[in-house]
Amino acid sequence: LATRLPAVGTTVFTRMSSLAAEHDAVNLGQGFPDFACDPKLVEMVAEAMRAGHNQYPPMTGAPALRQAIAAKIAALYGHAYDANAEITVTAGATQALTTAILAVVHPGDEVIVIEPAYDSYMPAVELAGGVVVPVQMALDDAGYHMPWDRVAAAVTPRTRLIVVNTPHNPTGSVLRDADLQVLADIVRGTGILVLSDEVYEHMVYDGHRHASISRHPVLAARSFVVSSFGKTYHTTGWKIGYVAAPAPLMVEFRKVHQYNVFSVNAPMQHGIAAYMANPAPYLELPAFYQRKRDLFRAGLAGSRFELLPADGTYFQCVRYGAISAMPEAAFAEWLTTEIKVAAIPVSPFYRQARESGIVRFCFAKKDETLALALGRLARI
Amino acid sequence: LATRLPAVGTTVFTRMSSLAAEHDAVNLGQGFPDFACDPKLVEMVAEAMRAGHNQYPPMTGAPALRQAIAAKIAALYGHAYDANAEITVTAGATQALTTAILAVVHPGDEVIVIEPAYDSYMPAVELAGGVVVPVQMALDDAGYHMPWDRVAAAVTPRTRLIVVNTPHNPTGSVLRDADLQVLADIVRGTGILVLSDEVYEHMVYDGHRHASISRHPVLAARSFVVSSFGKTYHTTGWKIGYVAAPAPLMVEFRKVHQYNVFSVNAPMQHGIAAYMANPAPYLELPAFYQRKRDLFRAGLAGSRFELLPADGTYFQCVRYGAISAMPEAAFAEWLTTEIKVAAIPVSPFYRQARESGIVRFCFAKKDETLALALGRLARI
Ligand SMILES: CSCCC(=O)C(=O)O
Ligand SMILES: CSCCC(=O)C(=O)O
Repeated sequence: LATRLPAVGTTVFTRMSSLAAEHDAVNLGQGFPDFACDPKLVEMVAEAMRAGHNQYPPMTGAPALRQAIAAKIAALYGHAYDANAEITVTAGATQALTTAILAVVHPGDEVIVIEPAYDSYMPAVELAGGVVVPVQMALDDAGYHMPWDRVAAAVTPRTRLIVVNTPHNPTGSVLRDADLQVLADIVRGTGILVLSDEVYEHMVYDGHRHASISRHPVLAARSFVVSSFGKTYHTTGWKIGYVAAPAPLMVEFRKVHQYNVFSVNAPMQHGIAAYMANPAPYLELPAFYQRKRDLFRAGLAGSRFELLPADGTYFQCVRYGAISAMPEAAFAEWLTTEIKVAAIPVSPFYRQARESGIVRFCFAKKDETLALALGRLARI
Repeated sequence: LATRLPAVGTTVFTRMSSLAAEHDAVNLGQGFPDFACDPKLVEMVAEAMRAGHNQYPPMTGAPALRQAIAAKIAALYGHAYDANAEITVTAGATQALTTAILAVVHPGDEVIVIEPAYDSYMPAVELAGGVVVPVQMALDDAGYHMPWDRVAAAVTPRTRLIVVNTPHNPTGSVLRDADLQVLADIVRGTGILVLSDEVYEHMVYDGHRHASISRHPVLAARSFVVSSFGKTYHTTGWKIGYVAAPAPLMVEFRKVHQYNVFSVNAPMQHGIAAYMANPAPYLELPAFYQRKRDLFRAGLAGSRFELLPADGTYFQCVRYGAISAMPEAAFAEWLTTEIKVAAIPVSPFYRQARESGIVRFCFAKKDETLALALGRLARI
């Protein structure tokens, strides 16, 4: 049986979570919280089931949820998407990303992907028959930087799409408003579309604001902006996400969406829509996670790990060169099996595994969990 | 913006449901029950959320659910799938079908699709870059028949996949055990795979048993068998399905699945797994729906509609030639707007709309709903 995706194996997240469980390690690998979501949200979903929201919702998503999403984007980022024509609810952000790629990338089209990159972008481009053009972030003593000059240089007449991700997994770097203008300058006068993965939109720290692509009218007019509720509401296993895009792009998205999943879990949609009436949970998220980030950084400050900046997401990247010369995957395994703290190597986020001596920790954990992990890590 | 799916518009199900709502018609169009699911099932999902099953489940599905599915298939159809390597939980059956197609159909591969066909099969083949080879069911006074001779004649060295669907939407016809052997003879000695859509598996009537592809060892060894819980548990809006396939096929399926949706709503999976410990709900389903089928057929017996056989599914196809010479889409609209009973034309289930003078009614409705509709239909 010939494979459609020759390069694909089990994801690094699944592998490291299994290894962590096997070795009874504190799991700071795969990105998910180890604390409970709001019981009110749970009861709102239960209420939606009891109220009978158990049959097919509209293909585009429950109207109440689409309206709540559009209102949130308008309030936070100032862009007024039409809830009917420009918002679609998806079975998680990954489904939104892959569906968008399948909808607009034709065989032979080039797609610029900035590395390190979340692991689903490139296989999705390959499934669509597109050609991945990887562009690597610059990496210096001060950490990772957006490689805009290299992005500009990578553009060709065949470029169909640029995939961006802010806040950025795994590096924790974020775009600033000035970056949006740079990107707009790159795509101006071309037919290039933008796919923006913003699932960590509510995790931007130190008083900065999230530079959503939807803030920039020129970009918003040619972009798919993807987010999800998993990271925001501590429910990564609910797999409810969404995409916002101008109507002509959304028409194409929905053609694929309706034959990929048709529609998305109805009671979850209704429960989340009810919960969104109160914006406090996502408005409080930056402070909530900034405290955890600071706690985690403080705990590693005296250690042999070198902390990279962590401006967004719930991830902290560290250099471990002072501890070991092992390749990243081997070091992450050693951390998991010997130190009993699981981490994620950054190398699998590159198409051609690149060794930078950096691993990623997830700090979306109870303070006790972080304390336990920090005790082990600081002792190295 | 060039489209990837030129032929795709809004699905006939969405259009007819909207028209029904607009004209206050009894909606016997889109297939979904108008009665509640079991409150016990609802509470099991709520319990799963309260128990903390809210983070990423394994990419392949919650182990408890995969085990319950494997046990059910073994008990009903006698095939022992390995719950770890051969079952994957999906975000509904449509996602399973499209993912399977994307996983094994390479550009230029031919896929035999039997028409009338559920509307997602052909766009999925087109997305994969495959070539749809439609083969039409035979249609005579006695109804629709499997066109095995035409299927055999359509096989070429480029044939990669045959898509079958039993019980069959929209015709309500079903395969019998003898059909499995005919199909096995067609694929023997070739590399052709089979994709079997069996979402109506528990709706086979008159004492017959469901001829699951997984009953036939030769076919099971080269088939993806897809089903879902939406039809079985009266929860079409939950969008939890699954695929069973031998390990080598499943390896390819999961490569695409993990980058399409990664994983599927965790609390729904845990709730359904708990509910499956009691097989009564699906064991009682044939009798439950056969009664509704018989009630619906009895109500139309004296009418000007001619009933086709309805051996499975919750659909009843009827000829309306004695009432009107309108094309099917126009007749279904007239029924909806003038008679106030929505139906689905069969013509959109063909790639090149074919007029047979037949529309489809869904009888998965409360007895009162069926009585109301029958009153209106019998009066024509
Ligand atoms: C989909 S599993 C991976 C979770 C995640 O986004 C990450 O750990 O990077
Ligand atoms: C996915 S909406 C269609 C429901 C259905 O299967 C049908 O009505 O045929």
